[in-house]
Amino acid sequence: MAPPDANIHPVATGRAAETVTQHQDPQELTFYSGWFCPFNQRVWIALEERGIPYQYKEVNPYKKEEHFLRINPRGLVPAVEYRGKAIYESLILLEFLEDAYPSHKPNLLPSDPYERAHQRIWIDHISKTVVPAWMRLLMAQPNEQEKLQTALNELYEGLRKLQREVKGPYFAGEQFTLVDVALVPWVVRDHVLAEHRGYKREDVGGGWVEYAKALETRDSVLRTTSERDKYRVLYDRYLRGEAQSEAAKAIRAGRPLP
Amino acid sequence: MAPPDANIHPVATGRAAETVTQHQDPQELTFYSGWFCPFNQRVWIALEERGIPYQYKEVNPYKKEEHFLRINPRGLVPAVEYRGKAIYESLILLEFLEDAYPSHKPNLLPSDPYERAHQRIWIDHISKTVVPAWMRLLMAQPNEQEKLQTALNELYEGLRKLQREVKGPYFAGEQFTLVDVALVPWVVRDHVLAEHRGYKREDVGGGWVEYAKALETRDSVLRTTSERDKYRVLYDRYLRGEAQSEAAKAIRAGRPLP
Repeated sequence: MAPPDANIHPVATGRAAETVTQHQDPQELTFYSGWFCPFNQRVWIALEERGIPYQYKEVNPYKKEEHFLRINPRGLVPAVEYRGKAIYESLILLEFLEDAYPSHKPNLLPSDPYERAHQRIWIDHISKTVVPAWMRLLMAQPNEQEKLQTALNELYEGLRKLQREVKGPYFAGEQFTLVDVALVPWVVRDHVLAEHRGYKREDVGGGWVEYAKALETRDSVLRTTSERDKYRVLYDRYLRGEAQSEAAKAIRAGRPLP
Repeated sequence: MAPPDANIHPVATGRAAETVTQHQDPQELTFYSGWFCPFNQRVWIALEERGIPYQYKEVNPYKKEEHFLRINPRGLVPAVEYRGKAIYESLILLEFLEDAYPSHKPNLLPSDPYERAHQRIWIDHISKTVVPAWMRLLMAQPNEQEKLQTALNELYEGLRKLQREVKGPYFAGEQFTLVDVALVPWVVRDHVLAEHRGYKREDVGGGWVEYAKALETRDSVLRTTSERDKYRVLYDRYLRGEAQSEAAKAIRAGRPLP
């Protein structure tokens, strides 16, 4: 029997569906995407921000097709086929798009070596601290109050550290950069934590509410976001502790996210 | 009371001590180093490979001095002070050295965008699979045979996946590149696993023995390696399950390595 996640809505909806329609023609770069996946949305936002030509192909990672598995042996989205070669892992793809399309403006990584390192330090913080705490909070069951509170506090603490570095309106100031891209999919989805796990943006403090607002209303973010109720079906499985994605399994096993 | 790791040998020895002596003069870049730390050795190798001018400063991360904590609030080595600004995290530092010193040859990241992504995919594999399995094996106690065998199998499996990508003599062929740099500190130290945990290079299979030999005899590796018995004191604490480093604590807690 297929795991329950195999029954998620098969395609993007709302604004994201319009974007998919506009990217059906074959290009040098094929974007293998899962419309619902936050890691995936990072790459999609970067493609849209910079107007890189791409062909969109939806992959249900729970029903993997053979061509896709030949391209990406790990079988995970996001993945890219570029001149017949496969690239995967969301953060590696973000760096790749900077390297392969330097003339598509705006660049999302600054050119100054120190500023690039500064971006990568905070992207690393998002990967190692913010996202795992976010997922642990989502997956903590209401009958495990201690676990839930610990995850909530870890998430607040991780977001506060990041917030102190935000120049406003975006992380690096007026420019929308890779730190924003790496974080925003979890901001777009934080209403799930607000509804079910006691998370409040205001409780992060500082200028977090304003920063979150600036991120979620960015046009490239809206253009890659589906209808809210379609995500709900997916997150209900995490909330009930039944999700079978690779990320969910990693969190349960206390392993790094794949 | 200080944790037991505070008593490790305070400075580099052997070939590494000679290298330290040659890098005492102030430079634009100060390298805050822990001579024994494998993450640290990655950065040291890159500095040596490319002849980047640097001043070496030894930091005992278990007895953190104030100036160092001002530079790097996370208090971890390796760290770099570059024109008065702090950069840390070994992989971020490796990327930084490529970005900040493009004219120091040889570059350790290829210029082709796909090849750069390919390097980063395998560095990610080393970080997420090889190093955690290596540490779990080191810290598995002999009375926990199942745990020990699981870690050993995970390490072999991780190394075999990597091995299938090695062109020889180095990962990318004749050129020594960042994948080699990211891996070699754990190859230099694998005698600890061989003596105490049943690990054998031959059991990886393929050309692993030859690849490991090529890596550990590279001049930049020898020039950043201390006397073997000085590492032993440190690893004895891991072998007995008493290590208090951040990496040791993360492995015990089932969290991503810092």
